[in-house]
Amino acid sequence: MRERLAIIGSGNWGSTIAMIAGERVLEWSQVPERHMEREVRMWVFEETVDGQKLTDLINTRHENVKYLPGIPLPHNVTACPDLVETVKDATLLVFVLPHQFVKKVCEQLRGHIAPSARAISLIKGLDGSQSGIQLVSHSIRDALQIDVSVLMGANIANEVAARQFCETTVGYADEANGALWRELFHTDYFHTHMVQDVAGVELCGALKNIIAVAAGFVDGLKGGDNTKAAIIRIGLIEMRRFASMYYKGVNDQTFLESCGVADVITTCFGGRNRRVAEAFVLSDKSFAELEDEMLNGQKLQGVLTAAEVCKVLERDNKLDQFPLFHRVHLIAEGNADPKTITQIKYVRGS
Amino acid sequence: MRERLAIIGSGNWGSTIAMIAGERVLEWSQVPERHMEREVRMWVFEETVDGQKLTDLINTRHENVKYLPGIPLPHNVTACPDLVETVKDATLLVFVLPHQFVKKVCEQLRGHIAPSARAISLIKGLDGSQSGIQLVSHSIRDALQIDVSVLMGANIANEVAARQFCETTVGYADEANGALWRELFHTDYFHTHMVQDVAGVELCGALKNIIAVAAGFVDGLKGGDNTKAAIIRIGLIEMRRFASMYYKGVNDQTFLESCGVADVITTCFGGRNRRVAEAFVLSDKSFAELEDEMLNGQKLQGVLTAAEVCKVLERDNKLDQFPLFHRVHLIAEGNADPKTITQIKYVRGS
Repeated sequence: MRERLAIIGSGNWGSTIAMIAGERVLEWSQVPERHMEREVRMWVFEETVDGQKLTDLINTRHENVKYLPGIPLPHNVTACPDLVETVKDATLLVFVLPHQFVKKVCEQLRGHIAPSARAISLIKGLDGSQSGIQLVSHSIRDALQIDVSVLMGANIANEVAARQFCETTVGYADEANGALWRELFHTDYFHTHMVQDVAGVELCGALKNIIAVAAGFVDGLKGGDNTKAAIIRIGLIEMRRFASMYYKGVNDQTFLESCGVADVITTCFGGRNRRVAEAFVLSDKSFAELEDEMLNGQKLQGVLTAAEVCKVLERDNKLDQFPLFHRVHLIAEGNADPKTITQIKYVRGS
Repeated sequence: MRERLAIIGSGNWGSTIAMIAGERVLEWSQVPERHMEREVRMWVFEETVDGQKLTDLINTRHENVKYLPGIPLPHNVTACPDLVETVKDATLLVFVLPHQFVKKVCEQLRGHIAPSARAISLIKGLDGSQSGIQLVSHSIRDALQIDVSVLMGANIANEVAARQFCETTVGYADEANGALWRELFHTDYFHTHMVQDVAGVELCGALKNIIAVAAGFVDGLKGGDNTKAAIIRIGLIEMRRFASMYYKGVNDQTFLESCGVADVITTCFGGRNRRVAEAFVLSDKSFAELEDEMLNGQKLQGVLTAAEVCKVLERDNKLDQFPLFHRVHLIAEGNADPKTITQIKYVRGS
């Protein structure tokens, strides 16, 4: 049985991952025992750039001129506008597309994937549902009935594409699959650690944005370094508490991996969630107004996630164990003054 | 038996702690069951400020005009130039003085402290010794034969003195003493958590400076956010590994307390270790030259600690498990290029 890699998505991060994994596949395809197909198909939602099809541009220039300009892609990566064609015979599926497209893409894929396929999700976000919160990796797993790992970390795409040193975390359920994904992505400049904890890793990627909103409030209020560090730490603890409360097998170690503490740091010092929350304090505008002005009307992830998480916590009468998440939600909704971000209740034993 | 608090040290941090603990003692002294003496003596190394004794200035103005100007101290805090007089009948001793004075102070105190005395150390640093590394709290414990807790955290003194929200960590060996110290320091703006792990808490306070030097190198090299976050995370892991390797009973949780992740963050984004290390990359100067120029010849703590730690690790043939600490030491000694800070070996399972 030969292995074949397919990448579902081709944005900034998807193209970066295509570069890393494409180079590894090229190496492996020269080792017969690897049984690895040389070609890596990458699904591209077709669009026209300067009068040409984006797929044609990628396939002739070996560069995603629109979403990752200036970075050469290995020649074995081929852009494909057809989703089903992309995954044909693929045994390794990398999901790296905007969260809102996952459901539809899975519907289209159903019945078209190889029997031995397994997947990894690089998608950040949560599916809010009637019954609470659903992980994106679980949505994919349930839709396609395959094993799904996740990869998350302090990985600003352009810095990774420039091969600046960083780390990332693979969260797996099936150990052999986790090890294979680790081997596929690990390089000298992209250190990949693995942890048997899909939910913990994936929740870090979603919940960190709530902490970044809190950090933005502190920055807007001109809080000191102590305060910001305390808010980040409390956020990490609430992240861990939430994950352990709602998912079995969450590993404490996960929060000291790149997906945990490192990604929280980058998100709280850079990133749009921090920036818009800072603007919220410094202006008299609501988040809805700022989203219009600063994000072309896109919803701010941290505010959205805080609302979804607090809805679940309120239902379960657990809000008092999450004073920071709750406070972010109250402030974002206009029900508390941003100054109260530091008036968070002391929770013993955190 | 009445309780009496004494503060040994009166610098920036000592005066801040005198403010916090002094106010709490004032409250407790009004509750008969507390059996608490109202007066808090604070040992001041006598010096002359504008022609007046510093102790007189503190005792008349209720302000440490030299080391914490602008912050009123509670009137029950009295400055005392005599060390033995300061601790007379004191049952609670707070050590908050520069590391290099500890040995001599303990020698002077021996035989003069109350039988029921216990102490807490707020001193950051390590005692390098022939046999390896000695914790300051253990030096005090061994010299005076009393229980010694520690308090460390992301606590820039001026921000704490301005009552800006932050957190801190009490590490204790004796639980009753730990709880008492927590109660003494905890306020709405100075959240105090406790963990039964003196060595872990204290090592965080010392080892964080090595990480800050690494972070300064990254800043000097104009590294990205991913890289800096990775360096911080690897540093945290090495900190934990070192503590667990050399001390029994170190608790993994400690590294997610204020003394761990939060203090590492403040130190890696502000602070002198980061700043001087950045200058090291941007200039052609050695650390010795930069210490002369930027620190009046004082040694940079992170460089010193890296050397002490690496000496022990080399002796025990464990350097390869600490690629970041080792790399910092190599670069600081001029034996490696700062650019190699990101060429740190991958250690599996961290």
